[in-house]
Amino acid sequence: MIDPKDPEGAIAEAAKRCSNWGRWGADDVQGTMNFLTPAKRAQGAKLVRRGVSFSLSQSFDADGPQKGWRRRTNPVHTMLDTGTDAVTGVQGFPHGLGGADDVIAMPLQCSTQWDGLGHIFDHGLAWNGRPAEKVVTSLGDLKTGIETVADVIAGRGVLLDVGRVLGTDGELPDGFAITEEHLTATIAAQKTEVGRGDIVLVRTGQLTRARRNGWGDYAGGPAPGLSFMTAGWLHRTEIAAIATDTWGFEVRPNEFDHAFQPLHQVAIPHIGLFLGEMWDLDALAADCAEDGIHEFWLTAAPLPITGAVGSPVNPIAVK
Amino acid sequence: MIDPKDPEGAIAEAAKRCSNWGRWGADDVQGTMNFLTPAKRAQGAKLVRRGVSFSLSQSFDADGPQKGWRRRTNPVHTMLDTGTDAVTGVQGFPHGLGGADDVIAMPLQCSTQWDGLGHIFDHGLAWNGRPAEKVVTSLGDLKTGIETVADVIAGRGVLLDVGRVLGTDGELPDGFAITEEHLTATIAAQKTEVGRGDIVLVRTGQLTRARRNGWGDYAGGPAPGLSFMTAGWLHRTEIAAIATDTWGFEVRPNEFDHAFQPLHQVAIPHIGLFLGEMWDLDALAADCAEDGIHEFWLTAAPLPITGAVGSPVNPIAVK
Amino acid sequence: MIDPKDPEGAIAEAAKRCSNWGRWGADDVQGTMNFLTPAKRAQGAKLVRRGVSFSLSQSFDADGPQKGWRRRTNPVHTMLDTGTDAVTGVQGFPHGLGGADDVIAMPLQCSTQWDGLGHIFDHGLAWNGRPAEKVVTSLGDLKTGIETVADVIAGRGVLLDVGRVLGTDGELPDGFAITEEHLTATIAAQKTEVGRGDIVLVRTGQLTRARRNGWGDYAGGPAPGLSFMTAGWLHRTEIAAIATDTWGFEVRPNEFDHAFQPLHQVAIPHIGLFLGEMWDLDALAADCAEDGIHEFWLTAAPLPITGAVGSPVNPIAVK
Amino acid sequence: MIDPKDPEGAIAEAAKRCSNWGRWGADDVQGTMNFLTPAKRAQGAKLVRRGVSFSLSQSFDADGPQKGWRRRTNPVHTMLDTGTDAVTGVQGFPHGLGGADDVIAMPLQCSTQWDGLGHIFDHGLAWNGRPAEKVVTSLGDLKTGIETVADVIAGRGVLLDVGRVLGTDGELPDGFAITEEHLTATIAAQKTEVGRGDIVLVRTGQLTRARRNGWGDYAGGPAPGLSFMTAGWLHRTEIAAIATDTWGFEVRPNEFDHAFQPLHQVAIPHIGLFLGEMWDLDALAADCAEDGIHEFWLTAAPLPITGAVGSPVNPIAVK
Repeated sequence: MIDPKDPEGAIAEAAKRCSNWGRWGADDVQGTMNFLTPAKRAQGAKLVRRGVSFSLSQSFDADGPQKGWRRRTNPVHTMLDTGTDAVTGVQGFPHGLGGADDVIAMPLQCSTQWDGLGHIFDHGLAWNGRPAEKVVTSLGDLKTGIETVADVIAGRGVLLDVGRVLGTDGELPDGFAITEEHLTATIAAQKTEVGRGDIVLVRTGQLTRARRNGWGDYAGGPAPGLSFMTAGWLHRTEIAAIATDTWGFEVRPNEFDHAFQPLHQVAIPHIGLFLGEMWDLDALAADCAEDGIHEFWLTAAPLPITGAVGSPVNPIAVK
Repeated sequence: MIDPKDPEGAIAEAAKRCSNWGRWGADDVQGTMNFLTPAKRAQGAKLVRRGVSFSLSQSFDADGPQKGWRRRTNPVHTMLDTGTDAVTGVQGFPHGLGGADDVIAMPLQCSTQWDGLGHIFDHGLAWNGRPAEKVVTSLGDLKTGIETVADVIAGRGVLLDVGRVLGTDGELPDGFAITEEHLTATIAAQKTEVGRGDIVLVRTGQLTRARRNGWGDYAGGPAPGLSFMTAGWLHRTEIAAIATDTWGFEVRPNEFDHAFQPLHQVAIPHIGLFLGEMWDLDALAADCAEDGIHEFWLTAAPLPITGAVGSPVNPIAVK
Repeated sequence: MIDPKDPEGAIAEAAKRCSNWGRWGADDVQGTMNFLTPAKRAQGAKLVRRGVSFSLSQSFDADGPQKGWRRRTNPVHTMLDTGTDAVTGVQGFPHGLGGADDVIAMPLQCSTQWDGLGHIFDHGLAWNGRPAEKVVTSLGDLKTGIETVADVIAGRGVLLDVGRVLGTDGELPDGFAITEEHLTATIAAQKTEVGRGDIVLVRTGQLTRARRNGWGDYAGGPAPGLSFMTAGWLHRTEIAAIATDTWGFEVRPNEFDHAFQPLHQVAIPHIGLFLGEMWDLDALAADCAEDGIHEFWLTAAPLPITGAVGSPVNPIAVK
Repeated sequence: MIDPKDPEGAIAEAAKRCSNWGRWGADDVQGTMNFLTPAKRAQGAKLVRRGVSFSLSQSFDADGPQKGWRRRTNPVHTMLDTGTDAVTGVQGFPHGLGGADDVIAMPLQCSTQWDGLGHIFDHGLAWNGRPAEKVVTSLGDLKTGIETVADVIAGRGVLLDVGRVLGTDGELPDGFAITEEHLTATIAAQKTEVGRGDIVLVRTGQLTRARRNGWGDYAGGPAPGLSFMTAGWLHRTEIAAIATDTWGFEVRPNEFDHAFQPLHQVAIPHIGLFLGEMWDLDALAADCAEDGIHEFWLTAAPLPITGAVGSPVNPIAVK
């Protein structure tokens, strides 16, 4: 189906077929988050049964996966005040009070995150057909900054544990392209459903492997991930968002000879889809495997950093 | 009741009376978050009716309230890649792809946040009686870093709109000390309840005022807030956490002659209570005033920054 | 001479008259630093007589002048390791060794600095006529980064203490436009000379005033400074660089009705001149006033931050 | 001479023998910089003959040597405004002006630097016998911050090219301990002198090798460097400062079984000596080898970052 010599043609064709431009008006800034309505949210909350909660975030610290690609670093956390200071009496507070404060510096794309709609452009155009240079300047994203969905991302989550269903010992190998057939087979095996407004979490097992073997090339190297051919499924299902346990969401190496993240190029600017990356799905997946229930209430609220093209996030699933 | 000349004595007395040290064992790192059990969480989820969601976070940007107190600054957001770069063709990606990345540098206490248990010490001791210098060094909080509650903070939220119930035009004046009586009166007026494991949100209206008049001394100046005398209530109600729309949670100026945040000194190291500050409660409060329902499902997940003494947060309330 | 209604025309005329484009070849990246030859440098070293040295840098810390203009902040200095940590034994070093490390985050334009040649563009063109978008992207200055003059800026410095010669109590008032006549009069009064390859330091006295009265609007407000009409002098004298004790080098308010730093627009992209700003000339000036010698050996080496459009600097004058 | 089993005893003995505590009074904050007097400075300036200048700084960028030791990272340089923005007309400046600004975040110990006197402690004591916890807190170095020598470090520099004199192809192997005999032999071979107030630069050739082969373990791994046994020479010669082309100044692995930088522990807190690290001496060394002159005028002015325990520096040698 894929002509490995023509990524540009394939992208153009998929973009045309899957475009949501104008679907929510010319001024839209929320893309597929429009599918996540209050009604969907009310349904999602009914999925809380036991009240057990799971953080789907990796640790934010200097031991993260980043190795410098496009100047992405791991978080740098430093202290403005400490307990060692407090006990040596240098803080100047009265009546025995001591305090600690801290600071972080980090790329917004360094660990568990959302890609916002300003993160990727296709031939100079951003989501809804806006010229990229009018959207994202050095001042940040002037239109579709992540703050536009600050209150939206809470609803029904569905785990598709493709690693467990189709992999060996729960893991897909690097380079494994997850196709629509794989997604459908996983849904069937899990006896679950995926539909409009859902937040879909795809577990490949690569993070499990990285945790066991060390980061290696987790940040940018070969990885299992979604096939370029799933663009239609991503569009047709009308999901609100999708996230994976990998660095880059789509299969790597990409499926074209000369390519870089071609599915991003369709999904973000044309479908208007929110992508989550580097999510830690293992504890949740273990629980889902045990009770056979792969749906849950999910809150994944980005920090409303004005004009950000993405945000670190600590997604919380509750079953 | 308060002897303004003896903060240290008052703190010592309240600390003794309200201490939770050892309540959850010598190794405990979650304090009052122990009250937020799966059962409580399951009850909380039933509060979702319409599916309407509210972000309780201020904007994270250079226009925030910080003025330099203890070197706290507003967030600095810069870009690593932009749309203007993409259209000028300098990014080096194939097939027309362009991208934007960004970076943030910010104190973790600069805007809407959680104070973690390592944020405040009393006479050299941190939560559960640990020596402050063993807990928080330049490496961060080695015991009670905010990551220890990464998956906990989702449950029943209750808004106490003291500003609307007791204030003028919905706002309490700066320096107004909210006492236990005020809290009780608000609960009664709202026909709501507060109990074990709840996350209590106290709206004073000061942020409403700051939004209207400019920040002024919002960060550290006079403010309405909880009276030191509420320590017993904070302890006795067995709430999991409490947050306000002010910089510093407690009334300012503080109620002692020579004092700095005396209620913090009891609440964090002795009660083990999580405090939220600078939350934006206005949109939620307007909705609660309209439908008369002041309880809701609340997810307020901190970023799991390893060893952090607090975290920025985008709390999401759903009714 | 100046038509306040036509900054654009005046800039175009001055740019044409003063342009150095092509003077040092199409590939030049050093502009007027080409005037600072080894021979000039050898002459400059002869000015060291007593061996007394002066730092011309302001302090780099949180008490600096920045107030947020274009997101410029004051430096944020935090510690990675401290003495308080060392004495509490948490550092893990053997044989009693302890250590302290630190980190800085700062705009390169926050305090005493050099403007590099990539700092200002005129109608989309940078120094030597290069398209701005080919020179400075999110990756930094790809052509004229400050590292290109890392080893150059050491030579003869000349102080023009216009404040002392023409001001009241050593200070020019805000809004005072220093013209060519003022410069010439100062040179004559001081019995000094200015010529090819010199680094000229112009003291207005505004920093003296800010030190006395507080920063106020030092960063971006009204200030004494060079008149737009000095463009010809800056070009004709063939100086290597010029620095002032003010935020913005040129007089503010600018001399046109609708203007922003018009002299920068001629000096940097057209003359290729290096501008220093926020230098602290007071101690040096006092010494020069005392011994009547206004020339000295000056080393003002920028940090070779690859691709930077400027650099903080600690200039050292030796007499 | 060295008992590899007793670093602590050897350090105590050397510290006692070489201590300068009290030599310049109880309040001293400049240590061996006291040797660098105006008279010495005046002599040094006479070494400028040709006016040829050399930057001794490595590039400050993301391609530096740091690999994360004690959270040291390479510099992160981002843009606040760019040329690509300027040409797309989003900057809001009048009359065609465009601009670029930038920001840096970096550990002060990440590249070419000075260790300040607050950088190292011995058994809880800093330079001149001060308790470390009174000197360096989270607020920085309250006594001996690098700003105390902001105007001092300009004087006679002497290159000791031990790599060229004693190495193979100009390089000493990793682990090579440079002894006093090696230093003396190099001085003799070069027909130069070292004495009071000099700034001594020791070239090992390791940076030359790293440039050829890649950084490898340059930051913290095996390296040629000064033997612990040179403590007496460092003290006796009364030099003002010493710098090397290596990460850590002294030989690595260190010469004791269980040790970490034992010579630092004597040199900084006891001798009060300023150490430079990661200097790039290659271009200067080539010139010295050619003309046989190994002395020069050297300016190595730290940025006066208030309270910093060190500073990045661009040292400029002029011959």
